[in-house]
Amino acid sequence: MPRPKTPLLSPELIADAALDLIDETGDLQMVILARRLKVAPGSLYNHVKGRADVVELVRLRIADQVSPPLQARDWKVAVAGFLKSFADLYARHPKALSLMYDHTISSERMLSFYEPVFAALMRAGFPASELRTIMTLIDYQAVALARGLPEPVVTDEIRDSLPAYAASIEYATNSRDEAVALATDVLISGLEQRLLRNPNGTTSQGT
Amino acid sequence: MPRPKTPLLSPELIADAALDLIDETGDLQMVILARRLKVAPGSLYNHVKGRADVVELVRLRIADQVSPPLQARDWKVAVAGFLKSFADLYARHPKALSLMYDHTISSERMLSFYEPVFAALMRAGFPASELRTIMTLIDYQAVALARGLPEPVVTDEIRDSLPAYAASIEYATNSRDEAVALATDVLISGLEQRLLRNPNGTTSQGT
Repeated sequence: MPRPKTPLLSPELIADAALDLIDETGDLQMVILARRLKVAPGSLYNHVKGRADVVELVRLRIADQVSPPLQARDWKVAVAGFLKSFADLYARHPKALSLMYDHTISSERMLSFYEPVFAALMRAGFPASELRTIMTLIDYQAVALARGLPEPVVTDEIRDSLPAYAASIEYATNSRDEAVALATDVLISGLEQRLLRNPNGTTSQGT
Repeated sequence: MPRPKTPLLSPELIADAALDLIDETGDLQMVILARRLKVAPGSLYNHVKGRADVVELVRLRIADQVSPPLQARDWKVAVAGFLKSFADLYARHPKALSLMYDHTISSERMLSFYEPVFAALMRAGFPASELRTIMTLIDYQAVALARGLPEPVVTDEIRDSLPAYAASIEYATNSRDEAVALATDVLISGLEQRLLRNPNGTTSQGT
């Protein structure tokens, strides 16, 4: 028997099949993934250690679509670019969000998508001690914006008992673009104020 | 046979048992929950429609511990109180976060915990059209702060290739209290700037 000319499995093929499976079913079962890839489950485990590895491949598959690549220019551009890119890309795969939420980032390559934002914030003068929390703020906002809110029902009873909530629903702008713009403005303005109040510029721990 | 003096099941008993089960195992299976409550699975379904209902009871069980209750006073106090209360309470039940993330709020009673913040923001002059996105920003921050970030490993290789990320880890303040204070400051400053730039005060759609 001649050997097949193309390899049966690669990280890219696994990621594509896994993302399709998640988009369709909202779940990721290794046995079903193997079946879709037309391999035995054991073959799959020659390429990945387990389900968490596959989720990381899926995350990378999505992040690889960030275009243009994020750069460590002006920190506001970097933050806005990160929020917009990931909110939009994650929104295309809503059923993948829970799985990505359950499995934290585990690869250096995925962290490299965060590096331009870290670098831009650091150069702007945010203290190194605060970068991690600031990045968490930004990262979760991207997820929140991608996920959006469930379609709520406002009944007459709720209009009576929770009038401010009811108004927030009835007058809500439902476009994700507007929500992204608002969240980006709030985060960047808030960060800018923090920088203005602490104008030393460089990090107290040096760089 | 005399009837038992206390009911075998109540929303409170179900919520307590479910939260214990989730805290211990990170999962919520109805059959196991019924076994722990010493009832047949069918009895459970006399009180709840399904797993999503139980998750909502768990969420309410956690939110009922907010103390003192949030009030619609000054909007900054309301926002800071919401963030701190939910970040701290959710952090006590880290394994419940994924389940709550997967199931959106479905009860009027849970929404009543958000109402003081909606009302305070509305009275402060934030447009009704923006309240929903602003509340999402705040809500996801509480979850992010409760969840924290995974303990990352910084290798020599990562220090070379991702220096800003590596610095953010090595100098990070790991206390949740400090992270809550920082995130609260960024969100409130950012929202305040937005209010200052749009000083008309009242919502464009009226109240």
